[in-house]
Amino acid sequence: MLSNELQHKIDFKTKPLGALGYLEQLAHKIGMVQKTTFPQLLNPHMVVFAADHGIARAGVSAYPQEVTYQMVMNFLGGGAAINVFCRQHGIEIKIVDAGVNFDFSIGLNLIDKKVRKSSRNILEEPAMTFEEYLQALENGKSVVAEIAETGCNIIGFGEMGIGNTSASSLMMSRLFDIPIASCIGRGTGLNDDQLQNKINILTTAMERYPEVKTVDEVAQTFGGLEIVQMIGAMEEAFNQNMLIMVDGFIATIAIATVWKKNPEILNNCIFCHVSDENAHLQLLELLGQKALLNLNLRLGEGTGCALAYPLIQSAVNFLNEMSSFEDAHISNKE
Amino acid sequence: MLSNELQHKIDFKTKPLGALGYLEQLAHKIGMVQKTTFPQLLNPHMVVFAADHGIARAGVSAYPQEVTYQMVMNFLGGGAAINVFCRQHGIEIKIVDAGVNFDFSIGLNLIDKKVRKSSRNILEEPAMTFEEYLQALENGKSVVAEIAETGCNIIGFGEMGIGNTSASSLMMSRLFDIPIASCIGRGTGLNDDQLQNKINILTTAMERYPEVKTVDEVAQTFGGLEIVQMIGAMEEAFNQNMLIMVDGFIATIAIATVWKKNPEILNNCIFCHVSDENAHLQLLELLGQKALLNLNLRLGEGTGCALAYPLIQSAVNFLNEMSSFEDAHISNKE
Repeated sequence: MLSNELQHKIDFKTKPLGALGYLEQLAHKIGMVQKTTFPQLLNPHMVVFAADHGIARAGVSAYPQEVTYQMVMNFLGGGAAINVFCRQHGIEIKIVDAGVNFDFSIGLNLIDKKVRKSSRNILEEPAMTFEEYLQALENGKSVVAEIAETGCNIIGFGEMGIGNTSASSLMMSRLFDIPIASCIGRGTGLNDDQLQNKINILTTAMERYPEVKTVDEVAQTFGGLEIVQMIGAMEEAFNQNMLIMVDGFIATIAIATVWKKNPEILNNCIFCHVSDENAHLQLLELLGQKALLNLNLRLGEGTGCALAYPLIQSAVNFLNEMSSFEDAHISNKE
Repeated sequence: MLSNELQHKIDFKTKPLGALGYLEQLAHKIGMVQKTTFPQLLNPHMVVFAADHGIARAGVSAYPQEVTYQMVMNFLGGGAAINVFCRQHGIEIKIVDAGVNFDFSIGLNLIDKKVRKSSRNILEEPAMTFEEYLQALENGKSVVAEIAETGCNIIGFGEMGIGNTSASSLMMSRLFDIPIASCIGRGTGLNDDQLQNKINILTTAMERYPEVKTVDEVAQTFGGLEIVQMIGAMEEAFNQNMLIMVDGFIATIAIATVWKKNPEILNNCIFCHVSDENAHLQLLELLGQKALLNLNLRLGEGTGCALAYPLIQSAVNFLNEMSSFEDAHISNKE
């Protein structure tokens, strides 16, 4: 059985049993996904979905909405954190306009999957119509399907969207039946008054949709266009049997949404970091998952994935390259 | 002032204030050590000191003493975990015979700094004479002095020595006046009976030397040849103003020993991981330090440093390569 073969290979490497800790579990997981004792990471990709949120106009973020398109331009120019870290590790980066409230000029290296300019304001109506929701899922899938053709077998997802921690908090609250106040953090850096304001606004939003229950309804009503495209993208990555690197709070909400319908997706997921955003640790615990890094990051963009990538590569490398006790003629335990 | 200039540069990168968490503190620290807002990591090195311990014959380890020289051969053959991770990140690795109980054949790529074959058995006499102690310090310094000539400005230290968690526990207990039982872990994997045996043996060893008090006396009496060479090497790395990557329990005891005489060494130290060995977290807290990684590693060899190295590089890269709000024409907080 592959699981035993992998464990045997790990256990007989020249190190005390279990001494590589979490990297050993990771090596086992990667071998199981790729169905081999010699796994490989091929053509790693990072997809950053960007979109605006109608609710941003209600003052839930420390930054103005225009920062979304400005940051997209920064991604395209190579100057954002995610560019720096992807460059460092040879991860190919793709930027997707999932619904930014801006007319980008043509000729940019931007994947146009815009469903509409910004999601709707959930204080007034659901974030998307059902048709827009299905379109967003489909658009996300299509991005990954195209990447799969390059032979990529490990992919991470990042996001940019002023207001998207609000959307994620609303989704978490309804998906897991947790009071909204426990799902809210300071996002990009709210002060106490701003945080209280965010709690008040999101409480109002929650109360407006008591009938919203199913996973699809929750994502359609409270989600964002970049979040829903990420959900579709993650589904497709699972269908393609890729390893899925999961970033922070928003990416974890997207995975949790997929998981509600298809718990097996966790087999392919590597949780890359636990963010400084309050609710993220709680969400990881609900999914029964531990993260690789804990660096108090709260940036999004997929930065946690890019920073964790070399550890994932290390797990693969020790499995493939370390000698065994037998190869190296080393005495095992007495 | 450089400190303010660095903080300003970090704060005006295109990300929310503080959103890169611990990497921001790291970037600041590296800039301060190198006295520049454009730091660089040059010629990274990993030095693994190997030696045997007289006390190993008392049964404090799960592995027989011959594993020390066998693992040295494994390092030289490139098949150990530290080889794999250093190769992955372009870190030059040097293996030092600080006092292995074995006659290595000549012509190996091994740096011969052997003071004697194995430290003495501390159940009978101090681990080293004072002359051997001074020689070991000097040998460690000379290794780093030579590496410094290559322009290396970041260095990590690993160790291999069956029995060396025992030596480290004894040093910690006496240096910090903590009961020996609180300083003892399972090392490479002791069961309950073996652990109790280790506690009994080390309690006897502690009680044999009530008069040993000063830092030098503690290291000479309870240390090991690889630990003392590492102490000398760390002192020299500080003198050369290198960044010092600190690995697990044993490397942290070595740094703590230097710190007792020269607290400023912490300015140059990057604590790379917190190990699964019981006392390590406690020791980090005594030094007031947080580690980059927490992966339940308990391997030594410097593996925690090599695995953390890409994060250190990421801290430097974001400082040098990310655009600022102004460069990227991005609106800052409202």
